[in-house]
Amino acid sequence: MDVYAKLKERNYEIREATPKGGIYSPIRYFGQHLAYTSGTGPASEDGGNPLGKLGTELTLEEGREAAKSAMLNIISNLHHQLGDLSRIKSFVKILAFVASDDSFTDQPKVVDGASELLLDIFGSQIGLPARSAIGVNVLPGNIPVEIELLLELND
Amino acid sequence: MDVYAKLKERNYEIREATPKGGIYSPIRYFGQHLAYTSGTGPASEDGGNPLGKLGTELTLEEGREAAKSAMLNIISNLHHQLGDLSRIKSFVKILAFVASDDSFTDQPKVVDGASELLLDIFGSQIGLPARSAIGVNVLPGNIPVEIELLLELND
Amino acid sequence: MDVYAKLKERNYEIREATPKGGIYSPIRYFGQHLAYTSGTGPASEDGGNPLGKLGTELTLEEGREAAKSAMLNIISNLHHQLGDLSRIKSFVKILAFVASDDSFTDQPKVVDGASELLLDIFGSQIGLPARSAIGVNVLPGNIPVEIELLLELND
Repeated sequence: MDVYAKLKERNYEIREATPKGGIYSPIRYFGQHLAYTSGTGPASEDGGNPLGKLGTELTLEEGREAAKSAMLNIISNLHHQLGDLSRIKSFVKILAFVASDDSFTDQPKVVDGASELLLDIFGSQIGLPARSAIGVNVLPGNIPVEIELLLELND
Repeated sequence: MDVYAKLKERNYEIREATPKGGIYSPIRYFGQHLAYTSGTGPASEDGGNPLGKLGTELTLEEGREAAKSAMLNIISNLHHQLGDLSRIKSFVKILAFVASDDSFTDQPKVVDGASELLLDIFGSQIGLPARSAIGVNVLPGNIPVEIELLLELND
Repeated sequence: MDVYAKLKERNYEIREATPKGGIYSPIRYFGQHLAYTSGTGPASEDGGNPLGKLGTELTLEEGREAAKSAMLNIISNLHHQLGDLSRIKSFVKILAFVASDDSFTDQPKVVDGASELLLDIFGSQIGLPARSAIGVNVLPGNIPVEIELLLELND
């Protein structure tokens, strides 16, 4: 099953491109078929995007949903930029920041929300990216999660 | 107009190479014409380099100046390493950390100070890099901004 | 002297592969002979792995040991993944996060513990990587240091 069929089956819709929050490119191609996305948060027009930190304002489950939403934004932006998600050869690395109270140490469980979406939509044959999950005290606009993605495209 | 003429027109001077603060290379070449700079702060011998966090010790405007100063250090280091800034083909990605009080959420506006300098000096034809702007509670030496840059060189 | 002889001479032993803490690959190959490791902490079965922040729970020396231990984990994981550490051509970039109290600003000295291990085991001819050392308020599992590594492999 292709990626778009899988998105439909799971009731995910490609979202509008994420509004830019500064002077940068949403995606940048480089080298031999590589691309970097900009750091992307969970905001969507559907609403239901809680702000603040894990451990105080957000529960672990809300954080996982935020990470999933950030990854859906990345997938949507890739669709708009690439024209066709089948151009993606592999996801290389996720760098994920989680706004966290000092007492919250489950950043990897939060970011798994994003990784699970990748795995669910693109399947295991594309392989899992390397990943770092990092706690920080605050993120732009008070979002709970920000994710950047390094990926490789087909020739 | 070339990069050096533009620097002169804007009254920017190439600075001395940033003193190393540990065991690392200021720039590392890899792959096919790629290079990574080390994380670089705003310190300059001209002084006027406030320390501390955005939201408490530094205003947004001081933070923007710090980000611009960090990028001028990176450009200066690239000049010293590459010999000639015209060897740069494109800037691929900025990863920028902003020392932030928990209440400060305008990291992208701070980092725009660095992005504006790139755009001003290198022009839009070189393209804007992808970017992540992240808040953290503290940076080395209590600097307000630290930036690393991935770039691509001409053949 | 080769890498394994050097490890033996220095009384370092290759450790078991670091247990995975989420949905990701410990190492991911991409591009032309490049690889990214996932963010890796200092935990080892030998114990003696203090948790918490630099500046409060951990001394600078304990932080340096934690950074060294994280790098030994990375080297061990690379051995298990690559089969032979001599396949490594160069270390390109270290991105290191140090859990830090707001008053702790010696992140580079902490991360030097990791850089010194690389230099000691692989020698200066492989070259030092570029590096960023960043303070954060908390890391997964309350570890004091998390490091990710970009490297290049021989053909």
